[in-house]
Amino acid sequence: MNSQTPTRRPRSDGQRSRSAILHASARLATIEGLNGLSIGGLADHIGMSKSGLYAHFKSKEELQLATIDTASDIFTAEVVEPAAAAPAGLARVWALSNEFLAHLERGVFPGGCFFASVAAEIDTRPGRVRDRIVEFIVSWVGEVRRAVEDAQAAGELDPAMDAEQLTFEIDAMLLMANALYVLDPRPEVLERGRRGVAKLIGPAPTR
Amino acid sequence: MNSQTPTRRPRSDGQRSRSAILHASARLATIEGLNGLSIGGLADHIGMSKSGLYAHFKSKEELQLATIDTASDIFTAEVVEPAAAAPAGLARVWALSNEFLAHLERGVFPGGCFFASVAAEIDTRPGRVRDRIVEFIVSWVGEVRRAVEDAQAAGELDPAMDAEQLTFEIDAMLLMANALYVLDPRPEVLERGRRGVAKLIGPAPTR
Repeated sequence: MNSQTPTRRPRSDGQRSRSAILHASARLATIEGLNGLSIGGLADHIGMSKSGLYAHFKSKEELQLATIDTASDIFTAEVVEPAAAAPAGLARVWALSNEFLAHLERGVFPGGCFFASVAAEIDTRPGRVRDRIVEFIVSWVGEVRRAVEDAQAAGELDPAMDAEQLTFEIDAMLLMANALYVLDPRPEVLERGRRGVAKLIGPAPTR
Repeated sequence: MNSQTPTRRPRSDGQRSRSAILHASARLATIEGLNGLSIGGLADHIGMSKSGLYAHFKSKEELQLATIDTASDIFTAEVVEPAAAAPAGLARVWALSNEFLAHLERGVFPGGCFFASVAAEIDTRPGRVRDRIVEFIVSWVGEVRRAVEDAQAAGELDPAMDAEQLTFEIDAMLLMANALYVLDPRPEVLERGRRGVAKLIGPAPTR
């Protein structure tokens, strides 16, 4: 919608409030864990009544699922969409890597990568919450893999390389940078991740 | 102590019990989290009275710290000590990597690598528990790094390589294999980790 459209209406308070709650919840989940989220705890954290929160979410699981969806929207807006501006192929692989590292550096989530954080927590608990997290991770891995395959098709990366293996290795560098950066937030840690990616695919193309 | 020594006495029930409690606690922590450990919850889990458990641990933090120490002993016995049997240098780097992957495959902890699991949980919570986990991670990284440096000194790896960077990259492959294996426990996932390490340092030496 064009922001100049005179018929544009402000979002209702209910919607704005739900979105604000879920942004707070997504940030909090990277500290307290998804299981550490409770309607009562979140209500305290954002200074809202428990009954007010219950109007939005009927159960803890519903809150967890909505939180994951919001984290996914945030990650898409902060990492995936900016990277999509880069040309397909090697430049896109680099853009995905750099945008991922940059979102860590900006502290988009206080506990680093939302999905790395909650996956480590939920990995052993089957259910809808775990399924939703796995779904997101599969989509991210697919994003990197498509970029790798495009780079191979363009002759920027050796087409004989196993794209799934290379994707694993690139994601490994990003995951390690995330894990260390949360413990020790120095830019050098992110630079190690970048150098690890460069060892795998060479320097970012300059255009 | 020689197990044939006639004066050898059985461990007291108290000691055996404390060790059994902590082994159960270390396994449980990789599912429930270190913060999910409570004296009451652990007592239920192992079928012991809460007061019996309080006789061993005065507080939740004391239980958490003792659990980390036990997990550290288990990891040392399952990964670090078997790897120490390999010759120093490249064979040792490979032995550390393979023993790490093998301990995942054996399911030593149900939630994969104990330290990856609890680090992701505790990373944003300063305190003695976090310090103890960081201390362990630093010691593991040091173990891999010494093996890398020995391999460089022996001419098995290029001495011009940045040992700290290479250690980061090797650990990245192991961490990624762990993260995926807990979500999707297929041997192929561990094999990806092994192939990632081989890309960095070449195949394991045969002697």
